[in-house]
Amino acid sequence: MKIERVQGTLSLRRTIESGTEEQRKAVKEIIEQVRKNGDAALRKYTEQFDGVRLDSLCVSQEEIEEAYWIVDEKMIEIIRKAARNIREYHERQAQTSWFMTRDDGTMLGQKVTPLDAVGLYVPGGTAAYPSSVLMNVIPAQVAGVKRIVIVSPPNERGTLPASVIVAACELGVEEMYKVGGAQAIAALAYGTETIQPVDKIFGPGNIYVALAKREVFGQVAIDMIAGPSEIVVLADETARPNEIAADLLSQAEHDERASSVLVTPSLKLAHAVEKELKQQLATLPRRAIAEKALEQYGAIYVTDTLDEAIEVVNELAPEHLEVMTANPLQLLGKIRHAGAIFLGRYSSEPVGDYFAGANHVLPTNGTARFSSGLTVDEFVKKSSVIFYSKEALQKNGESIAAFARLEGLEAHARAIEERLKK
Amino acid sequence: MKIERVQGTLSLRRTIESGTEEQRKAVKEIIEQVRKNGDAALRKYTEQFDGVRLDSLCVSQEEIEEAYWIVDEKMIEIIRKAARNIREYHERQAQTSWFMTRDDGTMLGQKVTPLDAVGLYVPGGTAAYPSSVLMNVIPAQVAGVKRIVIVSPPNERGTLPASVIVAACELGVEEMYKVGGAQAIAALAYGTETIQPVDKIFGPGNIYVALAKREVFGQVAIDMIAGPSEIVVLADETARPNEIAADLLSQAEHDERASSVLVTPSLKLAHAVEKELKQQLATLPRRAIAEKALEQYGAIYVTDTLDEAIEVVNELAPEHLEVMTANPLQLLGKIRHAGAIFLGRYSSEPVGDYFAGANHVLPTNGTARFSSGLTVDEFVKKSSVIFYSKEALQKNGESIAAFARLEGLEAHARAIEERLKK
Repeated sequence: MKIERVQGTLSLRRTIESGTEEQRKAVKEIIEQVRKNGDAALRKYTEQFDGVRLDSLCVSQEEIEEAYWIVDEKMIEIIRKAARNIREYHERQAQTSWFMTRDDGTMLGQKVTPLDAVGLYVPGGTAAYPSSVLMNVIPAQVAGVKRIVIVSPPNERGTLPASVIVAACELGVEEMYKVGGAQAIAALAYGTETIQPVDKIFGPGNIYVALAKREVFGQVAIDMIAGPSEIVVLADETARPNEIAADLLSQAEHDERASSVLVTPSLKLAHAVEKELKQQLATLPRRAIAEKALEQYGAIYVTDTLDEAIEVVNELAPEHLEVMTANPLQLLGKIRHAGAIFLGRYSSEPVGDYFAGANHVLPTNGTARFSSGLTVDEFVKKSSVIFYSKEALQKNGESIAAFARLEGLEAHARAIEERLKK
Repeated sequence: MKIERVQGTLSLRRTIESGTEEQRKAVKEIIEQVRKNGDAALRKYTEQFDGVRLDSLCVSQEEIEEAYWIVDEKMIEIIRKAARNIREYHERQAQTSWFMTRDDGTMLGQKVTPLDAVGLYVPGGTAAYPSSVLMNVIPAQVAGVKRIVIVSPPNERGTLPASVIVAACELGVEEMYKVGGAQAIAALAYGTETIQPVDKIFGPGNIYVALAKREVFGQVAIDMIAGPSEIVVLADETARPNEIAADLLSQAEHDERASSVLVTPSLKLAHAVEKELKQQLATLPRRAIAEKALEQYGAIYVTDTLDEAIEVVNELAPEHLEVMTANPLQLLGKIRHAGAIFLGRYSSEPVGDYFAGANHVLPTNGTARFSSGLTVDEFVKKSSVIFYSKEALQKNGESIAAFARLEGLEAHARAIEERLKK
């Protein structure tokens, strides 16, 4: 990783993968087939892409029992503790319906209503992501969503990873289907014999899943399309190089396109981190991935002052920001753009990925400038409520009609006046 | 408008205008030209599309004075009162940063930060929309957005409608540019010599504006792409047919694609409303538009019971819902999907369009199932804040590392353990 004196405008932006023409065509075809042939299409694609023939798409009671047998008791306890922490945090986000009144009898309010049904895509492949289950299902439950559906591609044994099944069961999720890829997204959006459609689809996935989410958007709502993960560490000379290096690597191991950046006014620290990175890389199981990520999207930026370093951070608007300075809390007010902010040396990013309680679904690719991570808000919608009394209309009716006519909308004015007639 | 007994699944969905290939190409070309040539391109397109040559894109002090001279004092007072009402309502939506602590020294929170800069598109053409200024600018101000930019196409005199200028000045907006169409959206997204770029673009516009917003999405955030307006009236036999008809027409006059629907268990009411519609249509200035809208997208649905009527409403998920029944408030809990809910006979929809205080930017095309109208939330973003103490990491570090290894992410586990080393 190169050490650079910062000059000019910086950005973490990487091109958003929009897929090839072929991939887009394939996704459209899959969606059409699922709309036309329902479950039969799901079975066909599951055999084709996941290499298994399934009688039932549902996760069975036997599979659940097996999963509990596979995942060890201590790990189940950790999942439970993490779930409690995540729930405690997200409960603070829950918004309530409210109203206000005026002396003339007007009542105005905002009604918060949970979505009826949401779907969560849990990626499969070589790894298992129980944390993705926790981070998406718990806010939905806090919001009061009645129907929560999990879909995930089956492994070669025709089942889901045990840790995913256990995480879902611990949360009380009752609908879990063994189907992945674009076909799963199509089923959630349009429904099949087995899977009733949902209103909004959450969760990360590969390029086919991302393209399918884009394709069904409008029919249903979707969450963000996540880009590769990012970390920026803002540190001064008081920070420990070994800890910074370990955190940069924990981001880099995710994906060859992940981005790990250190911003510091200390050239000495920059050199020490560079050295640590080399040492720690040597023994890392996912070394090849991490190395490639650091090479392509890693950077160490050295600024003249700490204030300049903060400005660089705001320009980058990272998904994850770690602040390892002498007084991290006093910098909080100056940080305008970041998905999540980790303060101090003990707040290593994996603390937030799994356990502390905040959500790990965060805005990537510089979008922290204008968007937020996943919150309970994403699982509700708000309707305004307007009650106007006779008195209020008599008092204000003329003004309202005048405003309507100012905009050239005569029928609007007449709708008001129809009520004011003697 | 036909009276129908309801059967099967209903929907207000109309195809979303996605423009012709030619329009999309034109928009791309305009955006590219603005990126390349800045102000010169804005001037060129303004001359080409709006038919005026502008020396300065800014609204001048003279234009402001002229606007105040044109708009009469009484109307300015009405705009001020509406602005106060809208501000009072939206201030209730403002969210605050919060934090929670745990005994082990953990602090978790959510930092609410306003967006740095937003742009608002105010449509031009034959009409003037000062209400659009109020409904978009006030929530931005309540959120604490520092830089608010209005763009709007100049009229044949090379200026903006007086009522738009006055509304903006009353709110203290300091940046107002006479530029419209796709070129205005491009300027807001990428910036020119005169117009600094913003982070998010709000406001409705014609097909070119909508296509341009789609095109720059990603570079900046955008608000929803609004479809044609809708009203559903839920009424029983106690409602007045003349008032219902007037409200249906007030929606229908907006646009030939607007949708006005009555849902009622009363066949008698249905017939009476039908008759009233004919009478009131006769004298309406925008009769041709309203008639076409009613013909294409109007409907009167008659159900057996009021409960069935409510289910029809939930299925339609309308932008605006008026409830004109004997006891409207008691139905509020049963209404799951609607952008705004107007209760009782004095709460005619134009009350909400201009004056009561709730926002008139609302989800159309059935999207009230999963989305909300414009709120202060759209002008802020939330960053999670995580502070972990030494004690907290010592207590939970092992669990976090175990979770990371469960997901196959060794560097995550090591980042934690690096801190636990003696």
